[in-house]
Amino acid sequence: MLKVPDHQVAGHRQARDGKPSPLIDDAGRFYKPLQDDDRGSQEVAFYSSFSSNTRVPDHVRRLFPVFHGTQLIEASDGSGLRPHLVLEDVVSSRSHPSVMDIKIGSRTWYPEASEDYIQRCFKKDRETSSLSLGFRISGLQIYGNEESRLWKPENKLVQNLSAADVKVVLKKFVSSNFPDDPNSDPDCSFAASVYGGSNGILAQLLELKAWFEDQTMYHLNSCSVLMVYEKEKVLKGERSDAEVKLIDFAHVTEGKGIIDHNFLGGLCSVIKFISEILTSPDECTTKVCLQDSDKNTNDSENCTTEGM
Amino acid sequence: MLKVPDHQVAGHRQARDGKPSPLIDDAGRFYKPLQDDDRGSQEVAFYSSFSSNTRVPDHVRRLFPVFHGTQLIEASDGSGLRPHLVLEDVVSSRSHPSVMDIKIGSRTWYPEASEDYIQRCFKKDRETSSLSLGFRISGLQIYGNEESRLWKPENKLVQNLSAADVKVVLKKFVSSNFPDDPNSDPDCSFAASVYGGSNGILAQLLELKAWFEDQTMYHLNSCSVLMVYEKEKVLKGERSDAEVKLIDFAHVTEGKGIIDHNFLGGLCSVIKFISEILTSPDECTTKVCLQDSDKNTNDSENCTTEGM
Repeated sequence: MLKVPDHQVAGHRQARDGKPSPLIDDAGRFYKPLQDDDRGSQEVAFYSSFSSNTRVPDHVRRLFPVFHGTQLIEASDGSGLRPHLVLEDVVSSRSHPSVMDIKIGSRTWYPEASEDYIQRCFKKDRETSSLSLGFRISGLQIYGNEESRLWKPENKLVQNLSAADVKVVLKKFVSSNFPDDPNSDPDCSFAASVYGGSNGILAQLLELKAWFEDQTMYHLNSCSVLMVYEKEKVLKGERSDAEVKLIDFAHVTEGKGIIDHNFLGGLCSVIKFISEILTSPDECTTKVCLQDSDKNTNDSENCTTEGM
Repeated sequence: MLKVPDHQVAGHRQARDGKPSPLIDDAGRFYKPLQDDDRGSQEVAFYSSFSSNTRVPDHVRRLFPVFHGTQLIEASDGSGLRPHLVLEDVVSSRSHPSVMDIKIGSRTWYPEASEDYIQRCFKKDRETSSLSLGFRISGLQIYGNEESRLWKPENKLVQNLSAADVKVVLKKFVSSNFPDDPNSDPDCSFAASVYGGSNGILAQLLELKAWFEDQTMYHLNSCSVLMVYEKEKVLKGERSDAEVKLIDFAHVTEGKGIIDHNFLGGLCSVIKFISEILTSPDECTTKVCLQDSDKNTNDSENCTTEGM
């Protein structure tokens, strides 16, 4: 029995523009329709290569969805049989997952892409926070303490956040008083159990970082980091099941002996934001002034607590 | 007594296009003429801010030239008095320095720049190795074992090298048989003493990397890492005086709470190249094939020793 999943948070993983949406089954598998153009075959090529690549260590492999090959099934929009990627279902098997999809890299295009694609991405990277932050939030949903309450802002609203606003969203993601009480500051009460700890999101991101400092096999252009956890488990005092998974490999290219410096830089930026929330959840921002060389500059600006 | 220095290896640090060149004195100071447009004042603003910024740790500060303020002196081209940055002379005080100037970052432009500047940099980053490698070699000179022998390729020839060729140049930089014998493989006999060791270039680059993972004060757009050492000292068995210095701050902008992910990514790419030379100077390149999803891909290509 295949059905359309509830918890898709980002762009092209939803049915739109006449394209079929992904499907899930009861056995924890996620069926992603292959895109018609090169992207479909590029994503299959990546999963095939990655899943059989013995040089990928296990602690890195677990940060990617398990690949079960491709399968010809009826598309969700009734348009007939269509090849689907069959993947581990990372999100939909959970009952009330809080999810954030972060597209990594200040640049989503790559030299091998078409000029038209390059120009479109170049424009979008400048219009969103990708260029400035090294990443953009592509979508998110956060459950409140009552299961029925869900905060799922429009994707357009979160793609171009400032550094201060991204930090607030990352705090909301691990707070007990959001989204129920949008008027108070996020309390970050789940930060230690979700972001922190030896199995937390930060530890997983740091494992990914160490791999990207070394691996020169793949460039993960326009790829996302998905962060998932369930608030109710944390509330019950159970061990956090916070998980990081990389998704969307339709634009992966060969590394050719070069590290993926674009992904690595963006990932380090995400890591810095999350580290700051863990080390000083109430910290202030300071700025260094370069505008006026005479008035130079031990003066940092007055501290302000960020709000959104 | 001011004079024009001998050892400038990269672009705009030489007199050309009717612009005066830098000058040096006998006391180890380097006088860099201020550029007329915003770049001059931006560079002064950076040095002023940085030199008085108490949050910069000493082990990072030593990787930047010491700043001695600005001074109005006669320009080298006889065009009259002109303001100059007065800096520590990193290169010219050495007798036979081997020097490499590496411009860091896959992107040399930045959001605050003019559209014209952005488009010019965008084009040049794609035409050089900046985009693919995350850096480009802006210039270099390597002394042979006899002091009179100097290899100083045209800057244009080194700006767009492949990964394999960059590795060869980085090997030549620390080899005893280059540039004297261009037909044999670089022997990397100085790699351990110049790149390696607790005071070597790699250790200095790793200190820089750790700082860039954390600091959110400055974005060092279009800035270079200079690597300098003297072969004769290494040949005599003296302690290597290999040094890393950051230079060219005409395009520095405020970090605004965000790490410089563009610089960091490019720096990590340089670090990876140098690490590989240290760990396996004769290693081969392997590739992962993404082209054909059926033929997938534990097959790495046959090993080939790189040559240039």
